[in-house]
Amino acid sequence: MPRLIKKSGKKVGTAPGTLLHIGERRAESVRITIIDYDEQTYQEKELTKIEECLTFKTTPTTTWINIDGLHQVEIIEKIGQLFDLHPLILEDILNTNQRPKMEEYDNCIFAVLKMLTYDEQNRRIRTEQISLLLGPNYVISFQESIGDVFGSVRERIKTGRIRIRKSGSDYLFYALTDSIVDHYFVVLEKLADKIESLQEQVASDPSEVLLHNIHELKREMIYLRKSVWPVREMMNALIHMESSLIKQTTEIYLRDVYDHAVQVIDTTETYREMVAGMLDVYLSSISNKMNAVMKVLTIIATIFIPLTFIVGIYGMNFEFMPELKWLWSYPLVWLIMAVVAMIMLVYFKKKKWI
Amino acid sequence: MPRLIKKSGKKVGTAPGTLLHIGERRAESVRITIIDYDEQTYQEKELTKIEECLTFKTTPTTTWINIDGLHQVEIIEKIGQLFDLHPLILEDILNTNQRPKMEEYDNCIFAVLKMLTYDEQNRRIRTEQISLLLGPNYVISFQESIGDVFGSVRERIKTGRIRIRKSGSDYLFYALTDSIVDHYFVVLEKLADKIESLQEQVASDPSEVLLHNIHELKREMIYLRKSVWPVREMMNALIHMESSLIKQTTEIYLRDVYDHAVQVIDTTETYREMVAGMLDVYLSSISNKMNAVMKVLTIIATIFIPLTFIVGIYGMNFEFMPELKWLWSYPLVWLIMAVVAMIMLVYFKKKKWI
Amino acid sequence: MPRLIKKSGKKVGTAPGTLLHIGERRAESVRITIIDYDEQTYQEKELTKIEECLTFKTTPTTTWINIDGLHQVEIIEKIGQLFDLHPLILEDILNTNQRPKMEEYDNCIFAVLKMLTYDEQNRRIRTEQISLLLGPNYVISFQESIGDVFGSVRERIKTGRIRIRKSGSDYLFYALTDSIVDHYFVVLEKLADKIESLQEQVASDPSEVLLHNIHELKREMIYLRKSVWPVREMMNALIHMESSLIKQTTEIYLRDVYDHAVQVIDTTETYREMVAGMLDVYLSSISNKMNAVMKVLTIIATIFIPLTFIVGIYGMNFEFMPELKWLWSYPLVWLIMAVVAMIMLVYFKKKKWI
Amino acid sequence: MPRLIKKSGKKVGTAPGTLLHIGERRAESVRITIIDYDEQTYQEKELTKIEECLTFKTTPTTTWINIDGLHQVEIIEKIGQLFDLHPLILEDILNTNQRPKMEEYDNCIFAVLKMLTYDEQNRRIRTEQISLLLGPNYVISFQESIGDVFGSVRERIKTGRIRIRKSGSDYLFYALTDSIVDHYFVVLEKLADKIESLQEQVASDPSEVLLHNIHELKREMIYLRKSVWPVREMMNALIHMESSLIKQTTEIYLRDVYDHAVQVIDTTETYREMVAGMLDVYLSSISNKMNAVMKVLTIIATIFIPLTFIVGIYGMNFEFMPELKWLWSYPLVWLIMAVVAMIMLVYFKKKKWI
Amino acid sequence: MPRLIKKSGKKVGTAPGTLLHIGERRAESVRITIIDYDEQTYQEKELTKIEECLTFKTTPTTTWINIDGLHQVEIIEKIGQLFDLHPLILEDILNTNQRPKMEEYDNCIFAVLKMLTYDEQNRRIRTEQISLLLGPNYVISFQESIGDVFGSVRERIKTGRIRIRKSGSDYLFYALTDSIVDHYFVVLEKLADKIESLQEQVASDPSEVLLHNIHELKREMIYLRKSVWPVREMMNALIHMESSLIKQTTEIYLRDVYDHAVQVIDTTETYREMVAGMLDVYLSSISNKMNAVMKVLTIIATIFIPLTFIVGIYGMNFEFMPELKWLWSYPLVWLIMAVVAMIMLVYFKKKKWI
Repeated sequence: MPRLIKKSGKKVGTAPGTLLHIGERRAESVRITIIDYDEQTYQEKELTKIEECLTFKTTPTTTWINIDGLHQVEIIEKIGQLFDLHPLILEDILNTNQRPKMEEYDNCIFAVLKMLTYDEQNRRIRTEQISLLLGPNYVISFQESIGDVFGSVRERIKTGRIRIRKSGSDYLFYALTDSIVDHYFVVLEKLADKIESLQEQVASDPSEVLLHNIHELKREMIYLRKSVWPVREMMNALIHMESSLIKQTTEIYLRDVYDHAVQVIDTTETYREMVAGMLDVYLSSISNKMNAVMKVLTIIATIFIPLTFIVGIYGMNFEFMPELKWLWSYPLVWLIMAVVAMIMLVYFKKKKWI
Repeated sequence: MPRLIKKSGKKVGTAPGTLLHIGERRAESVRITIIDYDEQTYQEKELTKIEECLTFKTTPTTTWINIDGLHQVEIIEKIGQLFDLHPLILEDILNTNQRPKMEEYDNCIFAVLKMLTYDEQNRRIRTEQISLLLGPNYVISFQESIGDVFGSVRERIKTGRIRIRKSGSDYLFYALTDSIVDHYFVVLEKLADKIESLQEQVASDPSEVLLHNIHELKREMIYLRKSVWPVREMMNALIHMESSLIKQTTEIYLRDVYDHAVQVIDTTETYREMVAGMLDVYLSSISNKMNAVMKVLTIIATIFIPLTFIVGIYGMNFEFMPELKWLWSYPLVWLIMAVVAMIMLVYFKKKKWI
Repeated sequence: MPRLIKKSGKKVGTAPGTLLHIGERRAESVRITIIDYDEQTYQEKELTKIEECLTFKTTPTTTWINIDGLHQVEIIEKIGQLFDLHPLILEDILNTNQRPKMEEYDNCIFAVLKMLTYDEQNRRIRTEQISLLLGPNYVISFQESIGDVFGSVRERIKTGRIRIRKSGSDYLFYALTDSIVDHYFVVLEKLADKIESLQEQVASDPSEVLLHNIHELKREMIYLRKSVWPVREMMNALIHMESSLIKQTTEIYLRDVYDHAVQVIDTTETYREMVAGMLDVYLSSISNKMNAVMKVLTIIATIFIPLTFIVGIYGMNFEFMPELKWLWSYPLVWLIMAVVAMIMLVYFKKKKWI
Repeated sequence: MPRLIKKSGKKVGTAPGTLLHIGERRAESVRITIIDYDEQTYQEKELTKIEECLTFKTTPTTTWINIDGLHQVEIIEKIGQLFDLHPLILEDILNTNQRPKMEEYDNCIFAVLKMLTYDEQNRRIRTEQISLLLGPNYVISFQESIGDVFGSVRERIKTGRIRIRKSGSDYLFYALTDSIVDHYFVVLEKLADKIESLQEQVASDPSEVLLHNIHELKREMIYLRKSVWPVREMMNALIHMESSLIKQTTEIYLRDVYDHAVQVIDTTETYREMVAGMLDVYLSSISNKMNAVMKVLTIIATIFIPLTFIVGIYGMNFEFMPELKWLWSYPLVWLIMAVVAMIMLVYFKKKKWI
Repeated sequence: MPRLIKKSGKKVGTAPGTLLHIGERRAESVRITIIDYDEQTYQEKELTKIEECLTFKTTPTTTWINIDGLHQVEIIEKIGQLFDLHPLILEDILNTNQRPKMEEYDNCIFAVLKMLTYDEQNRRIRTEQISLLLGPNYVISFQESIGDVFGSVRERIKTGRIRIRKSGSDYLFYALTDSIVDHYFVVLEKLADKIESLQEQVASDPSEVLLHNIHELKREMIYLRKSVWPVREMMNALIHMESSLIKQTTEIYLRDVYDHAVQVIDTTETYREMVAGMLDVYLSSISNKMNAVMKVLTIIATIFIPLTFIVGIYGMNFEFMPELKWLWSYPLVWLIMAVVAMIMLVYFKKKKWI
């Protein structure tokens, strides 16, 4: 899981639009790949200079420019010039602590999303910020590092699926967004596994480690919710945005992403309630165990304290203690003690303490 | 009760509209039944091939096509072609983890609902996803398995009740929805029974099993709420939807379903508060029992500890202890101890500890 | 108090509008009374046959038909025919588990309310469902049993109060609604009495019975809120409803009922917070008592345990224990023990444990 | 503080507009004072008969009629006739359990507010209901008793402040409302003092009295909030009300009152959170103290119990116990006991229990 | 951190617009500085008399007048006259307990904000109220004391950054607001540091000081939220305000500030949840420690109590106790005691108490 408390990193006091990469450097070097297609043609290549993509800008084909790595600010700046982007867009792309959001500009739609993947090795959620730019016939995606969830989208374009090939840049924009939201389900499943395994433990073996795990899970869920919650509004805004960049046939697909976002939020809420319930069970398990311990103490102590008192009496050294000389005193004391212990046990039994 | 944490099962990365059955296979084989009626005629039959239903599509009579079993994707795909359905509809029908929802398409209204029934044997809620498609003169219902809550609707059509026979497909759509929502009340009653029986136990015998049962009940209620909550919005949307598919006379009936959904939600909320209150009672019962145990320990210990100290004194072996030689020492010690015990008992009585 | 968890009683699967009385039979036989009045005339009689009321339907005078007892379904059905009511209205009248609601039909306004009265003998809230039908010049009220809160309304009509006599059926409708809402204040006062008496007990004597009473009070408040909450929306809807059935001069009175409903809800919320606070006080009273008990145990035990150890030492039977032979050993031991006890008491005093 | 649970006092079942004084009689006799002013003139007198105020009604000067004491219903009734007020207004004036509200009538605006003052002697909030009536060139204020927060308004009128003198009745209405809301800040400050003094105590000396004080504070805050919350809506409604009675220049002042009301609500919410936090601190202080007590018990008990066992062993009277005859047994036992105690102390130290 | 419970200081009962400085005097003397610029020119000077700024009022250049120190009421009053400000604006400027807000007047837009800085020395948040006035070609800022967060804005103007130089007063207004909101991130980071350091402690060493720190953190967060929350509404209002004072090109920048405000609020909420979770962990750490202590007590006590009883038996002085004379009694008693202790240890082990 990413650090929840991130340094905001906003370079305080800089002019708006000042380009500064905020976040850790994750990629070795910046990689720019381009996929250009329409119903008939398909072209894929890796660019060495960002200026090369200009040739694709004016063609009627749909162009997907993908940038992996944000640490070379001058590349982002160049793209800003080439595609005539507002300085605030570039600032937002470079600041990886952005809240997911969607903004309409004159010549493009700009979206920031959080891509969540599950790191199996460390059993943590990994997060990466994706910025998407939808222009008239291009989509530009900015990623923090190489490796993403867009594999299937590339596959579908490459294998020439009709729908994606002929539907233009807004459909590509949808497909990328959909891939990201779909991956939230994968993360949800992992959380579900964790919840189930914790739920079994919480009843059988409520240890302190468990409490720690529950709270970690809780934090992961806060993080997931923070990533997903704005997506719903984003999609809603996108559906009702009367932008010429989005065709009406695409809206039905955006509605589908909206539904998925709602479902993720819903499920997260359910998980939250379950984890809250788990905490309750944990706390009462602990307290039940404590009670069991206390009861044993009480019973043993309350039985033996009077008996110890009795034997104490006949340990006194008075010269004139007639009982000490009686023949049957000793067995009698045993009898009395047995009776006292018996009465107490019966009392406890009746009170249902044993 | 169904597993709360379902594998979402969304095949991540597939193209939208890719048809994959997600969920467990519940039916042996897919069964297609058709009921075709108008005010005069009535016809009911089981189809062997899905294409047969085409003949009913164009007739002015109302046609209800019911499909039990979703695992044969090609049948669903065929229906999609025959009735010209959007690929996303088919995808949603096949994904049994859908959130209840309602969507308007150009040629039909599509609804997903959760059918809840109570499994008496296992004392659990069973859930099944129902997709309903309302077209100009047909309704298609998709179920996960054979067996449903639509018996009375079939009965009313068969016996020729005037209203249902002459009211067209939108009334049939209403009748099916109404049946599903009505069955939520049955589930509510079962939950009410559980709550009542738990409420009696919680006061009399607050065991750990009880806590477990309360939390299971809580989970069932979360599940119920998740199923019902969206139904309210659905009905509201349906009432205010200005669709040519729904006649104005039917709206008043949809308002009735809306009312029932609100009532189910209301009752669920009340149950939630009651269960929360039950948990409070449980926890303080436990803590009261603990306190009672502690008090007994305190009283017995505090009475005997000083007495044991006194008898200890005269167990000492000093050569020069004048009391040891006195004639009345022993009875005097008994007296002193009785007085000490008395004072303590009175003190405890005054403090209302006994 | 009525059972909170009512069997919903909805006969699942029946056709909408199927007339079935749901609820317990509370009246011996159905009683139909009619009050017919205008500014000059006044007439009151008990009908033996429901058809008799038809004569009043067409006259310009205001007619109030009151039906006590719902178990004779055929009477309700007859009224439905006579006044041309929608089948769903009749169904709702007969189902006494209705949520309070207000509905506008073409020829009438239909309202369901809960009449709450306080049963002094059993110290419980009694509830009864009232359905009100406002037509052009009549109001029909349906009650579950004989006996209601409308006494003062009848009185005012009978004694010829100007305003009610000349204001038509909508004013009568208002007057009945107002009577019901006014009675909520009576119930509120009874709850206030309960809260006050509990509040005194909670500080002085926090017993387990008290906890039970607090939770019962809480349930009663849930019930009250459930009855009142929808009334607010109802009144609001009624005020903004542009119905020809409600004159503008009446609206100001409906606003008054709205205000009262808001006030009841407000007060209920305040009570809820107070009861919640009471529970907190109760729990910390219990825990404070427990702490007091524990402290006494600690102090007595910690003082005597070392002393008992000391006397134990000189109870040992070693042959070579020089102290045993000293002349002043015994008083010295007493002195030591006194000092030890003193030190401990001072320590506890300093720590503010005593 | 006023009793939170007031008898609602609504005379159930009376006709709307029936005039009954509800609340305690607080004034000896009803006092009617009148202040009449415009830019040039100023007149102030006490009326003996209510009819006298009629002369002021028609003059263009601004007239402020103040009535102290509500128990003489006939005076209120007379005013109703003279100024042609709706019966419901009069009913609301007389019912001192009114929720703060604002209503627009044809010829006037009617407002009910709660005037809060802080009773220094009893350290409680005192509440009084103020009804304000804004007419074309008059304001009538109804108070429960003599003594109010309007001193500074009177002063400003008397000393001839330009703005108030020339601004008409709506400005006067604003000035009175503003005075009342301003006084909420005084009450807030007193609460703040209480919170601060409690906050110091809660850390140093968490007694049961403190808990009681915290809960009383909580109740006072519930009461304050109940009084202020509706004021916000009232002011909002007043600002957006398109009434000829309120000049546009006055609106900016009403916005100011609105801001103040929001600020009071905000501060109340902050206080609530602080008091909630205080309760948490209180409870954990209590539980920490308890833990400290328990630890001492544990340490003393666990150290001495084994030692007492050891001395018990050599108190046994067996004939054949070789140790009893050894020369160095007694010092050895002391040594052993010292070692055992040492080990335990080190163990506790390591576990950080001491 | 500033005192949370501030004396509201509103001089109750003064006429609206009465100018009174409310708050502590923070500056030695009032300092007035002026920065006047357009694309070509730049001028900066400190004024000795407020009237000097009049010369800048009419020039087309953008003028930023900054006043540090509010205690000289006559200066504020003078400004009010020179710039024709509404008396309520001046009142609000002087009252440093203002809630952040934004108001549109005929000739200006008035905003109140809280400037938060982090006082490293005392580890507390420092707060200062900033009032901003946006006029046609000027911005006036009022601060409580010298020293602010506007350094970078001054720098950008001075160094002649194109955008700020040519964008007029509304852009300057934005730049100042942005600086203030940007500084909230600095405060957030400091809180994040605190949270992290507390989080480590809470697991390892849950002391009472920690609880105190957590609650202080909580209070700081309440304060932060109170400052930021209204900023969101303010920015939203500003964006949708159709004022001639704000150019459309500036709106996109205000949207950016809005986004930042949302992000601060979001982060604050996340922190709140984390601190709440921390409290839970703290409380269960405490209770776990307590349980560990209790267990040790139980185990030692329950093992030794029976053993002490056994040795007590053979400390009795009866003449007829056959065991006392047996040769192997003493070792046998040791054996018995070892067995009893063994059984108990095994039992505890099995119960997982050790």
